[in-house]
Amino acid sequence: MPVISIEAGKMDKNQKEALIQSFTKSASEILHIPEQAFVVLIKEYDSDNVGAGGRMLSKVIAESGPMPCP
Amino acid sequence: MPVISIEAGKMDKNQKEALIQSFTKSASEILHIPEQAFVVLIKEYDSDNVGAGGRMLSKVIAESGPMPCP
Amino acid sequence: MPVISIEAGKMDKNQKEALIQSFTKSASEILHIPEQAFVVLIKEYDSDNVGAGGRMLSKVIAESGPMPCP
Amino acid sequence: MPVISIEAGKMDKNQKEALIQSFTKSASEILHIPEQAFVVLIKEYDSDNVGAGGRMLSKVIAESGPMPCP
Amino acid sequence: MPVISIEAGKMDKNQKEALIQSFTKSASEILHIPEQAFVVLIKEYDSDNVGAGGRMLSKVIAESGPMPCP
Amino acid sequence: MPVISIEAGKMDKNQKEALIQSFTKSASEILHIPEQAFVVLIKEYDSDNVGAGGRMLSKVIAESGPMPCP
Repeated sequence: MPVISIEAGKMDKNQKEALIQSFTKSASEILHIPEQAFVVLIKEYDSDNVGAGGRMLSKVIAESGPMPCP
Repeated sequence: MPVISIEAGKMDKNQKEALIQSFTKSASEILHIPEQAFVVLIKEYDSDNVGAGGRMLSKVIAESGPMPCP
Repeated sequence: MPVISIEAGKMDKNQKEALIQSFTKSASEILHIPEQAFVVLIKEYDSDNVGAGGRMLSKVIAESGPMPCP
Repeated sequence: MPVISIEAGKMDKNQKEALIQSFTKSASEILHIPEQAFVVLIKEYDSDNVGAGGRMLSKVIAESGPMPCP
Repeated sequence: MPVISIEAGKMDKNQKEALIQSFTKSASEILHIPEQAFVVLIKEYDSDNVGAGGRMLSKVIAESGPMPCP
Repeated sequence: MPVISIEAGKMDKNQKEALIQSFTKSASEILHIPEQAFVVLIKEYDSDNVGAGGRMLSKVIAESGPMPCP
């Protein structure tokens, strides 16, 4: 029944699958709850919809060059 | 002022309206708060963005045949 | 795998159980997903931690008399 | 490290930037935490996915004429 | 109907009220939605329940001296 | 800037620290984002406030014997 969420930028299908597997496996071991009980929700944000330190992430990226984020 | 959220797969407009009406009506009765005070937020997920039991839901569906989910 | 959340004021155990049963049953019927797949999370707030219309709920209540909320 | 979220209807880029700047600046001053520590997440909803007072927001709008919402 | 949430450390009642007023006022002006429509939810975390940069916030604070956080 | 949340039952301080370290490390590797950018939020629920399959978790546990959950 535990629910794990990640709110981040856009990602590809392999990254999503890796996050689901990794989060579930480690939380299952740490909390001693079977993997079957876990739900993982991946929430992807456009960089216009994220603020970091008071600045729109899309502008931070535009000024600093490309990087994988947020 | 109570906020009810549902995080699920894609759904059609009739399902959304039925959820809004049903959740609001029953919570209003149980909590003795007027229906006018409730907010309902429906969050639809692509099946690549949901993990169930450590597996990506899109793969669970592909292997088990079509079903309405998550 | 769907996750239903309600964010509201303090409630008693019977209200919690009624919300869990009601939300799960109606969402199961509307979305055609088995009840077993649903998670419900109840998040209770102190009335100092809720704002309604720009005012702290504890003050709204103090001025308008007791009511079950938010 | 504080995380501020707003769940609302569709908005334009200038509105997003104004929300990020305003929320971060005021929370930084009130909580005495540097602006650099804040994350803001903007979650835009289609008006079919929001319920207000038990009614789908898209229908409330259709009946009452255009208004900026939710 | 918009919902604004802040997830942060413990705060006092005056800080909560200031956040509610400030967030509601600025979002109302930016989005052109009446203040009456807004809900604000304040979620306070114990510093053991927050991770910053992969470290438990309570340990970061213990090593760096007191500061208002997270 | 990514935010990882886990909503689960009560846990001890060592479990919290292990979750923070594990989630941050694996997400940092998968998304190619520095660990410093991550926030982790741990939300602990009383078993009366969780529904699993339409039943209150505290009752599921009472009937099935003790287990670490949700």
